[in-house]
Amino acid sequence: MSEATRVLLDESRIPRNWYNILADLPAPPPPPLHPGTRQPVGPDDLAPLFPAELIGQEVCTDRFVPIPDGVRDVYRLWRPTPLIRARRLERSLGTPARIYYKYEGGSPSGSHKPNTAVPQAYYNAREGVRRLTTETGAGQWGSSLAFACAQYGLECEVWMVRASYDQKPHRRSLMRVYGATVHASPSPETVSGSKILAEDPDSPGSLGIAISEAVEVAAAAADTRYALGSVLNHVLLHQTVIGEEAIEQLAAFGEVPDLIVGCTGGGSNFAGLVFPFLREKLAGRMDPVIRAVEPEACPSLTRGVYAYDFGDAAGLTPLLKMHTLGHGFVPDPIHAGGLRYHGMSPLISHLYELGLFEAVAKGQTECFEAGLRFARTEGIVPAPEPTHALAETVAEALRCRETGEPKVILTALCGHGHFDLNAYDRHLAGEMEDFALPQERIDTALEELPVT
Amino acid sequence: MSEATRVLLDESRIPRNWYNILADLPAPPPPPLHPGTRQPVGPDDLAPLFPAELIGQEVCTDRFVPIPDGVRDVYRLWRPTPLIRARRLERSLGTPARIYYKYEGGSPSGSHKPNTAVPQAYYNAREGVRRLTTETGAGQWGSSLAFACAQYGLECEVWMVRASYDQKPHRRSLMRVYGATVHASPSPETVSGSKILAEDPDSPGSLGIAISEAVEVAAAAADTRYALGSVLNHVLLHQTVIGEEAIEQLAAFGEVPDLIVGCTGGGSNFAGLVFPFLREKLAGRMDPVIRAVEPEACPSLTRGVYAYDFGDAAGLTPLLKMHTLGHGFVPDPIHAGGLRYHGMSPLISHLYELGLFEAVAKGQTECFEAGLRFARTEGIVPAPEPTHALAETVAEALRCRETGEPKVILTALCGHGHFDLNAYDRHLAGEMEDFALPQERIDTALEELPVT
Repeated sequence: MSEATRVLLDESRIPRNWYNILADLPAPPPPPLHPGTRQPVGPDDLAPLFPAELIGQEVCTDRFVPIPDGVRDVYRLWRPTPLIRARRLERSLGTPARIYYKYEGGSPSGSHKPNTAVPQAYYNAREGVRRLTTETGAGQWGSSLAFACAQYGLECEVWMVRASYDQKPHRRSLMRVYGATVHASPSPETVSGSKILAEDPDSPGSLGIAISEAVEVAAAAADTRYALGSVLNHVLLHQTVIGEEAIEQLAAFGEVPDLIVGCTGGGSNFAGLVFPFLREKLAGRMDPVIRAVEPEACPSLTRGVYAYDFGDAAGLTPLLKMHTLGHGFVPDPIHAGGLRYHGMSPLISHLYELGLFEAVAKGQTECFEAGLRFARTEGIVPAPEPTHALAETVAEALRCRETGEPKVILTALCGHGHFDLNAYDRHLAGEMEDFALPQERIDTALEELPVT
Repeated sequence: MSEATRVLLDESRIPRNWYNILADLPAPPPPPLHPGTRQPVGPDDLAPLFPAELIGQEVCTDRFVPIPDGVRDVYRLWRPTPLIRARRLERSLGTPARIYYKYEGGSPSGSHKPNTAVPQAYYNAREGVRRLTTETGAGQWGSSLAFACAQYGLECEVWMVRASYDQKPHRRSLMRVYGATVHASPSPETVSGSKILAEDPDSPGSLGIAISEAVEVAAAAADTRYALGSVLNHVLLHQTVIGEEAIEQLAAFGEVPDLIVGCTGGGSNFAGLVFPFLREKLAGRMDPVIRAVEPEACPSLTRGVYAYDFGDAAGLTPLLKMHTLGHGFVPDPIHAGGLRYHGMSPLISHLYELGLFEAVAKGQTECFEAGLRFARTEGIVPAPEPTHALAETVAEALRCRETGEPKVILTALCGHGHFDLNAYDRHLAGEMEDFALPQERIDTALEELPVT
């Protein structure tokens, strides 16, 4: 194995294809259903919201989807990203395990989200769309889409959950720096927003409401489309550049992974890291254990059910067959905002049903403790979301210290935590809570599952 | 010239030596003087504050100073940094100029400061020091030193100007994440702080006061030393890794620079980029124009005098021969906190007197406008300090559009602006002020220059 700490790749090594795992599955996942007819959703149903190319990618079964030059050209600004061996973390744990992390925080918005924001903006621009709308919670996705829209001359309009809009002004500012228009949601600009404001002028908003507003505006204007930052097949597809690069870099280190660990919210970071390795595993070229880590406060894989449910809180989207806690489930306010989603990508849910990976859940105190240890050893302060994967990585490395196994562990550090320092402050002050999640809260939310 | 956008170097290409420009000058700069005796300061005067190795580097005349393996090993976490061609910025300006920027914002603390924080912590740890003290304004330096201390097991105690402590909590949090103790300055922990608090319990503090506190604590404890983030020769020396890497990377692009532009506060970023190129220029191997850019609100090179003055506001440090606006000069509150220093590094001042580079001053509105254009084209949001160099880069590129000259321009992007988004917000809201600096404010401050 190599003595290196970082393996960098030249820009000529940016992948030329996204990897589509649908091509390698025995069966595709169950299709999304129209919320009215309960029939499978067709391309025509989606055309008001997405450009044709992305609708095509949603159902495509080609193993490899070529990445257009116009997308690779923007990826070049920060890709390939480094694969780094966490030698100092290993040393602090006294473990024989060898820990590698793929670092996505060097992107313009500081997370992995531009990997899909860029192609989504590209295809929309190429099909003559003038404006994109989207929703955002803490702002990771909104700022990534704003950056991507600036690259292709698209207007970008973001509905940001009011609670975050008021409490997290920095990512709101970042969207504006990139030229986006940012609305606090609920907003008076839409019918759905106005309705809620009429009932409660002080509504803190929710991701579900923000989705409704962004979708409403996109559906109503011929030159406007909508963009989503996770869950859908085409979004997961775009993220596979992470894993493709990591395969080449891990080989350059002279390593074969024993364990791959990723955090899961909607699933795009996990899919991006893991799908290319799953291809290698399914083909018998390696045999890593693959493990998803979700928050105890929002455990869709470990405590949810596999059923058709709405993707949003308001019940406006197509019905998706997925692991879900119920679309009415409101997770406790953990700091990893990107993991507070009641469901799980249908494609990832399908792979879980096929037994292709394991899942565990973590409380946020353990995660922030791992984040602190990582910052003090490796230097990079991790965003709250990837601290979940780091917590499991640390736990496994400590198990290796007991057993003496020199396991090769790979994880993804999907974003830096420079926007999340107030959360670390609370942890350092001993004010971080782990929320116990009583089963009855899940049961109650699951009572509202739609009948199919 | 290469078609590449980014040139990355393998970690084996981290420089093995720092470059010491003192070796290539016809005469050294005038020495620092003891504030009491007005005699040149000797090593014994500095021993209570700095470890022997750094005192030696301060007066060393060897052309190359070897970088210890224990330092290169930590540099490996983020060095070599990329050199990037700003193709999208060029396109948006319609310029025939070719613009390259060396990006230092990918370091753990998001700026170039760890380049010297790491060796300073290393030498102190090697000489048995247990704790380092320092001051910080907005926190770039304090967070870098905190990171470096965590790497070598040193305690780190930072006095942070109270105004920033209250208004910029995120960098304060970053220091704590790295394990540092952070005091609001003035603090009751020191004699100098207590004295000021007794007179004014609500004092907002100043860098001068914070320096006094950090120096007082270091001088009083045998196991404690003090660390400075700019101005001194050894600090500038450590930053030359920036320029050394850039020379190799620019050659890989197949380019020879016509113009090199850097922003100047205390001078460490400018020196780091420029000194290695000055060596090449002095040896006749290339002939770039070299240009420093400072804020109009704090124009030590363009409107200061070259004289002996104190390094701090309180008049406690040795007297330094430098370009200064007077140690009592208080710059208007521009957002580029790192450029709000009344003086200029003595070594850089000496080079300016020798006619080795030019200097210009910029108002902050023009700088933020350049920063916005950069973010929307190149993706990275620049910190307010390097927007000064970007503003001059943009101005030169537009001159090239007029003249048709395909100049090769090199600049350094010494930090990202993810901690500075409120400043961009103010700019977008049209609330950014350019402060006119009346000559009499400078004249009044210069009346207090010490007699030598």
